[in-house]
Amino acid sequence: MRLLIVSTSSIHGKPYLTYLEDEVKSFFQGKKILFVPYARPGGISWDEYTAKASERFTEWGFEMTGIHTHEDPIKALAEADGVFTGGGNTFVLVKTLYDLGLMKPLKEAVENGLPYMGSSAGSNLTGLTVRTTNDMPIVYPPSFDALGLVPFNINPHYLDPDPSSTHMGETRETRINEFHHFNDQPVIGIREGSWLRREGDQLELKGPHTARLFRKGSAAIEREQGDWSDLL
Amino acid sequence: MRLLIVSTSSIHGKPYLTYLEDEVKSFFQGKKILFVPYARPGGISWDEYTAKASERFTEWGFEMTGIHTHEDPIKALAEADGVFTGGGNTFVLVKTLYDLGLMKPLKEAVENGLPYMGSSAGSNLTGLTVRTTNDMPIVYPPSFDALGLVPFNINPHYLDPDPSSTHMGETRETRINEFHHFNDQPVIGIREGSWLRREGDQLELKGPHTARLFRKGSAAIEREQGDWSDLL
Repeated sequence: MRLLIVSTSSIHGKPYLTYLEDEVKSFFQGKKILFVPYARPGGISWDEYTAKASERFTEWGFEMTGIHTHEDPIKALAEADGVFTGGGNTFVLVKTLYDLGLMKPLKEAVENGLPYMGSSAGSNLTGLTVRTTNDMPIVYPPSFDALGLVPFNINPHYLDPDPSSTHMGETRETRINEFHHFNDQPVIGIREGSWLRREGDQLELKGPHTARLFRKGSAAIEREQGDWSDLL
Repeated sequence: MRLLIVSTSSIHGKPYLTYLEDEVKSFFQGKKILFVPYARPGGISWDEYTAKASERFTEWGFEMTGIHTHEDPIKALAEADGVFTGGGNTFVLVKTLYDLGLMKPLKEAVENGLPYMGSSAGSNLTGLTVRTTNDMPIVYPPSFDALGLVPFNINPHYLDPDPSSTHMGETRETRINEFHHFNDQPVIGIREGSWLRREGDQLELKGPHTARLFRKGSAAIEREQGDWSDLL
């Protein structure tokens, strides 16, 4: 299985996806990429979102089409060299995939070797469930189960507590610890600008930041970039 | 109907609930209050959470029992002079109320005159749905429908965008605008330290802050403390 699990599509001060150029080029190599626009950031349409992603991927020499433009999306998955699920609202993304009957075909295609890249909501989708998303539950999906392409959950846009904050809402770490009162799997908090790359049985943390690993019953720990294959 | 819809149970630097002493005393007046501990902040048990709330309410001269300690919670609702639903995780709260069959009896009791106070997750519950919660979806409830005691949604712990932030996650305002791509009802963002009080057909915003009103298809506006009865 080949996965690129990205915390954020944009880092502060840089245009959409540009910081990932080298990684994306080395990951996909092939030319035909299917874009999954269903997370609709800011509520934009599938067409608008596909146009935004395509602009960058075309500039990099890839062909890209939106999965929604294909009469038979399952056939389109079979014919693509890669799939990229963009960020936005995780609940909207998951509900749409379930409603269109695409969750299972997408999982099978990736398990059978189709390279999968996700950012933010698209990264949540690679985990066991989407129960560690940061998003607002603006629609009700038929399940919180995700693709389960890795045996843990993702928390993208991971944010450290701000010691100067007077806000009383829960910190990210508190939220994930609450998750572990009701769920068993590890959670990896990936900071903006970093990503995981899976190649078969190898898992690597890449980018400028360490990542935070939460396991039920233990204190969270920071782990360095490099080999994380023990999590698989 | 009588409601106290509170953004947060604690404000920075003050012990639990103390800033609300005058308001709570004038709201409940009677002595027997039922506590709903199901939101389990930090994953604490129903007993622990009830002990925490009871300490404050007892100090103020109220009798308080946890709803879970009654063999017949519906009878307990009928015999109480008031109900207080504490904050924590909204998904855990809602799932528990549905699982125990308490959503409908609670709604009916409040509609028949039982004074209801909620803070944070307990405030989300007064709205039409919990689709504007800030919480992490750590469990999967059978529905996002809430008690519908007011014809709008609540966003507690409302937070203004931080212009100095370099974080790329969505601002609260962006999230609520995304909500309005899929939902019609107004959303009231209540800042920490402020609350709404409903007495029959009267709705009032109280506390130190203005609140932010989001309506589908219009730009969000700030509204002053005082009469908000036009929202009912």
